Amino acid sequence: MELRGVGVGRGVAVGPILRMPEPLPEPADAGHGGDAAAELETVQRSLAAVAADLAAKGQKAGGEAQAVLEAASMMAQDPTLVDDVKARIDSGKSGERAVFEAFGAFQEMLIGMGGYMAERATDLGDVAQRIIANLRGVPAPGVPTSDTPFILVATDLAPADTALLDLDKVLGLVTRDGGPTSHTAILARSKSIPAIVGVTGALELEDGTVVVADAASGIVIPNPSEAQVADAQARIAARAAASGQPIVPGALADGTPVPLLANVGSPKDGPAAVELGAEGVGLFRTEFLFLDSKTAPTVAQQQEQYTELLSHFPGKKVVVRALDAGADKPLSFLNDAHEENPALGLRGLRALRASEQILLDQLTALKGAQDATDADLWVMAPMVADAEETQYFVKLGRALGLKTVGVMAEVPSLAVVADQVLATADFVSIGTNDLTQYTLAADRMLGSVASYQDPWHPAVLRLVKMLGDAGAAAGKPVGICGEAAADPQLAVVLVGLGATTLSMTPAALADVRAELAGVTMEQARAKAAAALAAQTAAGARAAADAA
Amino acid sequence: MELRGVGVGRGVAVGPILRMPEPLPEPADAGHGGDAAAELETVQRSLAAVAADLAAKGQKAGGEAQAVLEAASMMAQDPTLVDDVKARIDSGKSGERAVFEAFGAFQEMLIGMGGYMAERATDLGDVAQRIIANLRGVPAPGVPTSDTPFILVATDLAPADTALLDLDKVLGLVTRDGGPTSHTAILARSKSIPAIVGVTGALELEDGTVVVADAASGIVIPNPSEAQVADAQARIAARAAASGQPIVPGALADGTPVPLLANVGSPKDGPAAVELGAEGVGLFRTEFLFLDSKTAPTVAQQQEQYTELLSHFPGKKVVVRALDAGADKPLSFLNDAHEENPALGLRGLRALRASEQILLDQLTALKGAQDATDADLWVMAPMVADAEETQYFVKLGRALGLKTVGVMAEVPSLAVVADQVLATADFVSIGTNDLTQYTLAADRMLGSVASYQDPWHPAVLRLVKMLGDAGAAAGKPVGICGEAAADPQLAVVLVGLGATTLSMTPAALADVRAELAGVTMEQARAKAAAALAAQTAAGARAAADAA
Repeated sequence: MELRGVGVGRGVAVGPILRMPEPLPEPADAGHGGDAAAELETVQRSLAAVAADLAAKGQKAGGEAQAVLEAASMMAQDPTLVDDVKARIDSGKSGERAVFEAFGAFQEMLIGMGGYMAERATDLGDVAQRIIANLRGVPAPGVPTSDTPFILVATDLAPADTALLDLDKVLGLVTRDGGPTSHTAILARSKSIPAIVGVTGALELEDGTVVVADAASGIVIPNPSEAQVADAQARIAARAAASGQPIVPGALADGTPVPLLANVGSPKDGPAAVELGAEGVGLFRTEFLFLDSKTAPTVAQQQEQYTELLSHFPGKKVVVRALDAGADKPLSFLNDAHEENPALGLRGLRALRASEQILLDQLTALKGAQDATDADLWVMAPMVADAEETQYFVKLGRALGLKTVGVMAEVPSLAVVADQVLATADFVSIGTNDLTQYTLAADRMLGSVASYQDPWHPAVLRLVKMLGDAGAAAGKPVGICGEAAADPQLAVVLVGLGATTLSMTPAALADVRAELAGVTMEQARAKAAAALAAQTAAGARAAADAA
Repeated sequence: MELRGVGVGRGVAVGPILRMPEPLPEPADAGHGGDAAAELETVQRSLAAVAADLAAKGQKAGGEAQAVLEAASMMAQDPTLVDDVKARIDSGKSGERAVFEAFGAFQEMLIGMGGYMAERATDLGDVAQRIIANLRGVPAPGVPTSDTPFILVATDLAPADTALLDLDKVLGLVTRDGGPTSHTAILARSKSIPAIVGVTGALELEDGTVVVADAASGIVIPNPSEAQVADAQARIAARAAASGQPIVPGALADGTPVPLLANVGSPKDGPAAVELGAEGVGLFRTEFLFLDSKTAPTVAQQQEQYTELLSHFPGKKVVVRALDAGADKPLSFLNDAHEENPALGLRGLRALRASEQILLDQLTALKGAQDATDADLWVMAPMVADAEETQYFVKLGRALGLKTVGVMAEVPSLAVVADQVLATADFVSIGTNDLTQYTLAADRMLGSVASYQDPWHPAVLRLVKMLGDAGAAAGKPVGICGEAAADPQLAVVLVGLGATTLSMTPAALADVRAELAGVTMEQARAKAAAALAAQTAAGARAAADAA
C-alpha cells in the first residue's frame, strides 16, 4: 500500500529503510549494590566516554553540527550535573537511575525557563540517553548508523538528531510528523536529500523494507515492483545528469528572467552558493555576528565580515538583513527574556529602534562594505509593520549613505498596506515562514499547530499577491526569501503572484531553476490563480498542479 | 501647558488630581534586635491585619473585585510564605526584610512559571507592600483614597489596582502609559469614567492640581481658567441630561439601523445590560463556566446557565461564543501549559477540535437553551483561521440543531479569505483586540509593544473592510465585538467599513448611540475612506475626525 505525505523538493530515492530507534525505557528506581564509590566510578567512565564520543563526532562533522555536538559533549561533563548524579548515587540510587533523575530534573528546570533554554532540554535528554545506553552496554538511541545507504524513517527530526546524522549514507527522509517548513524539510532542502514529511503510517514500516520515496508526488511505495524501481532509478540518473549541465540564470520558458539567489548565514558560505549557481544573495542573515557576544560587535569587526561576503559577489546583488534578534533567537543586550509570547514581542526592527546605536553601527559598517567592494548591496529591515516603520528605516539607511534600502514582509499588516510601504521602500522581500506564522496565528515551532505552517495556504498566497501587485504598480522588486521559494512548484506560483526574484538555500537552486524553465509567465499566473481560489493549503497545491 | 494623550470615550472631568504613590523603598538588609519570637509576632499581626483589611475591602466591593481582593487576602496568610518569613526571621533578618525577601523569592518563582501565574506576581508584590507599610506604620502605597472626588493620575493601572479603587470618588483617569485597549481604558469604558491614556508629562503633575481632563479631545488642562471650567461643567451637565433621555435603538442620522449589543461575561450581567439599552448580546463569553473546575461542566450545568442568560432577552439576539481557552486564559484539561507562544498556540477552536467532546457538550447545552427560551440564539467559534475550519464548526452546530452558526474574525487569514468563509458561515463577528494583535504581530499584553495595539491602524481597518465587503456581497451580518466598538469615533468608522452591529461593554452604549445618531451612512463611509488612506493609527483617527 502506498503511503502519502508532503514531498520536499522533486527528488526520488530507492533503498532499505532504517527507523529511528525508540527511546530507552526509564531505568527502574533501584539501588546499587552498596558500593557507591564503585558505582560512581562506572558512571564517570560512561560520562567521559560519551563526552569524548560526542566531541569526536563534532570534530568529524565540522560546521554548525560541530557546535551542537560540542555543546552536548560539555553537558555530559557539566559539574553541576555530575555533582547531582554523585549525590543521588551516595543516597543509594543505581548509576542509571541517578543519571536519569539528575538529567530529568535539569531538563524540567530548562523547560521552566522557556525559550532558547527550553529547546536545549531536548539535547540534554539525548545526552542522558547516550549515557544510560553506555552504562547498559547497548547502542545509543538517536540516529541510526549503517555502513550501507538507507532511507531514514522517523517521527520527526530535531536539530540535534540531524547534526549527528551521517548524511553520506542517507538516501532520503520519511517522517510521520512535520510540515513543509519543519526542521526535516529545511535539512532536506539544504542538503538536496529527497524527503517526504507528514506520512501517516510511516512508523509501521519494518527496518530493511525497500521503498521508493518520491518527493515530487509525495508518495512512499513499500516493496516496489521491478518496474517501479527501474523508473525511480532512471529519474535519479536523469537528475544527476541535469545537475551536471552548465548553470544558466533563472528564467521562465518564455524568457522572463527570475534571478535565483541564495540565503546564506555567514560570509564563508559565499563561494559554495556561487558554485551552485546563485546569481547573488537574497538573504544574508547577520545574527551569526552577534550570537556569541555579550555586546554588539564593533563597526570595524562587522565591516570586515560584510566586506568578506560582498567580495564573493562582484557586480552582483547582495541583500543583507539588519539584525533580527528576538523571538526564538534572543540576545541578552537587546531582548527581554521574560516576554510571554516572544514571537509577538520586541523583536526585529522594534528591538533595533529601541537600541538605536546598534542599528546605526550596523548600517555604518554596511556602508563601509558597500564602498569597499563592487557588489550591489541592498539592505533591509526585519519585522516591519507598516509605512511609518518603513519610512524610519529607509530614511536612516539613506542618511548613512546606503544605496538601496528595503523591508521584509513578515508581519501581515505590512502586506495589507503594501501600497503605502512601496511608496518609500526600494524593494520588499517576503519572509514566508514568519508571514505564514502570523497570518495563521500559529507558532511555527509548535508541534500541535504545525499543520497551519504551510505557505501554500490561500490566505498567505493572497497576501503575497497584494505585495506583488503593489510592487508591479510601483515598479519595484518584490522578492521571496522564505522556505517557500525552495519548493519548486510553489516557486512557480510565487512568480505567478508577482515575485520578481527567489532566494533559497543554495542546494535547492537546481530544482527550482529546472521547474521555472518549464513554464511560461502565462502558465505561472494560471497556476497562481488556481491556488488563490482554493480553500486549503493542500487544495492550493493540487489546484496549481492541475492548472 | 496642555498635556495630550488618547481619550477614552467622550466624557470630560474637572477636579483635583491625586497621584498613585510611589512604591516603598526596599527595606535595608538589617537584622532584628535578637528576639526572633517577638519579631515574628509583630509580623504575624501585620499579616493578619492586612489579610483582614483586604477581605473587608473585598466584601465591600463585591463582584469581580471581591474575588481579586480575597485572593490577595489569602496570599497574606499563605502557609508556605509565612513559613519562609519565619525561617528568615529565625536566621536573624528583620521582619520587613524577611517579608520583602520571602515575597520577592515567591514572585520570582511565579514569573518563571510564566502565563497566568506570572501575572499574579504583581498582586503578590502589592500584598508585600501593604504588609511592609503596616510594619512601618505608614499608609500603604497603591491606589490613593480620599473623602472628596479626584482625578487619578498613574503610570498605568493594573487589574489589582482598579479592584481596590473606590470608583465613587474617581472623576477621571489620566495615565502616562497604556493605549486605547489597556486595562485602564477597558475599566474606564466599563464604568463610564472619562480617561486619557498615554499622556506624556502626566506624572509631573502635583497632587491637588485642578485639571480639566477632556476625553473627547484627549487633552488635559492643568490649572484651567474659569471659562474652561465652566465649559467643562456645562458639558458634564449636558451628558448627564442626555443619559436620562429615553433609550432608542441604535441608528444613524439617516435612519440606518445599527443594533447596539452588549458584551457580557455571566448570565447575571444580563439585566444591567438591558437597563443600559442593549438590544441583545453580541458576545457572551462562556469561559466563566469552566475556569474554576478541573474538568468541563456537565451539559445540564451549562444548559442551566445558558437558559438563564437567554431568558433575559426574549425575542432578541444573543450571540454566544464557544469556549475560548488558551493564550492568557489556559485551562488545565484543554491546554498545554508549556507553549512558547501561547497566543499562537492550540487555543480557541483549535483546542476544542482536539478535545471534541467538550465542544459537543457545549453545543448540545446551547441547543437545549435555544429550545427552552424565546431568545434568538446565535453561536460562534473563537480563533477560526479559514473556510475549512468554518465548515467544520458550522456543520457540527447545524447537525446538533443550532439555528444560526458563525465564526469570530480574529486571525488575519480569516479576513483575507472572508469571501470563502461567508459562503458557509451565517455571520461573522470581528474580535478587534486579537485581530489587531495578530495583524501587527504584537502581544497585546506586552508593555514594550503596546503602541501597536491600536484598532485604528489602517491595516486593521482594511481587514475589517474586507470582512464588511464580503458580508455585503453574501448578504450576511458582520458584527464587531472587540473593544474598538466602544470607541464612539471608531464605531462610526467601523459602520462605514461595513459593520452591521456593534457589541460593547454596556456602559459604553450611550456614548456610541449618541455618536451614531449624528452621522449619515454617507458620512460614515467618507470617514472610513479617510481612515483607510492614513498611514498610522493616529493619522487614521485624525483623518476620520476631519472628514
